[in-house]
Amino acid sequence: MSDRRTLILQAATRVIARRGVRGLRVEELAAEAGVSTALIYYHFGGRAGLMRHTLEFISNRAERYTEPEACPESEPRAHLEEMLLLELQEAPDVVENSTAWGELRATAVFDPSLREQLRESTEEWIEYATGLIRQAQEAGTVADHVVAVDAAERLTALVEGLSERWLSGSATLTRVREVLGGAFEMELGPAPDRT
Amino acid sequence: MSDRRTLILQAATRVIARRGVRGLRVEELAAEAGVSTALIYYHFGGRAGLMRHTLEFISNRAERYTEPEACPESEPRAHLEEMLLLELQEAPDVVENSTAWGELRATAVFDPSLREQLRESTEEWIEYATGLIRQAQEAGTVADHVVAVDAAERLTALVEGLSERWLSGSATLTRVREVLGGAFEMELGPAPDRT
Repeated sequence: MSDRRTLILQAATRVIARRGVRGLRVEELAAEAGVSTALIYYHFGGRAGLMRHTLEFISNRAERYTEPEACPESEPRAHLEEMLLLELQEAPDVVENSTAWGELRATAVFDPSLREQLRESTEEWIEYATGLIRQAQEAGTVADHVVAVDAAERLTALVEGLSERWLSGSATLTRVREVLGGAFEMELGPAPDRT
Repeated sequence: MSDRRTLILQAATRVIARRGVRGLRVEELAAEAGVSTALIYYHFGGRAGLMRHTLEFISNRAERYTEPEACPESEPRAHLEEMLLLELQEAPDVVENSTAWGELRATAVFDPSLREQLRESTEEWIEYATGLIRQAQEAGTVADHVVAVDAAERLTALVEGLSERWLSGSATLTRVREVLGGAFEMELGPAPDRT
């Protein structure tokens, strides 16, 4: 991805996280990114294309900042739990990303052009979590009777629900992290001793 | 509540569910409700007051349309499960209410004036669910070891997360209902035989 393309997408994420999708005007975005509006139209073809690519960008970036310390191959359960808990933290990057993601998802309710990208990103996230649960079952750290895809769908939807409660001021960060922590034992069985 | 006040709040819910909060202009709302803009200002003092009251209205209305058949006193667990599943159904009233609720919650991330009303409504919902789980524990239909308030917070947050996935086209209604159904056994223990 070209540097200026990335610059534009970073700026779009910042603007959406600050003022919501309705606050995103191409002219303001151009000013924020320090590029011309023509360049934005050249790269993204218009507002709809820009929004879709921003959603994709946010989704890819989330994979990086939620990169847990636990190795996905040797500690798949710990990796999954860390990955989900990392979505709920005060770090400015995470708050910005989660705010923009929540806002684009809320916008997709009214804007069908965002739905395909949203569905793809959501499915990728669920599939990754499902794979980790299956690996953990093979490793013996998640109970065999757990239906991996169901647990993955519930845990990721719970993270989305809790994240929005936190970002909209209906629950504290401490509380949403505690509540999510409880969900791991509930969904995956008792936590194994870490060695 | 006066008839015209109710008319305005019903119209506001319709407009928000159709086009989102950004689509809500007082002039258009007046046309939709068949009243003057002056009357809207008289009753709600402005856009911020209107939004807060609409959030409260939606929250109260949800209590009515999600009134389950199972009696809360004699079948508290069945009542709770029905209440939560009723949030996920194709009925136009429910879709309208859930869409408007999700949109106002998403807006509260950027608009602090909505947060207190949102927090109150969310807390009332969690408290009601917590009370039902405690009653069910006394009746022997929910396992004793369940921490009622944690289960209530997770189940309601999961409903919000799943509802938004469904409304934004990332999951089918059948699938979100199935996934929520599984959460009941997970959180509350095996379902009792209904007599």
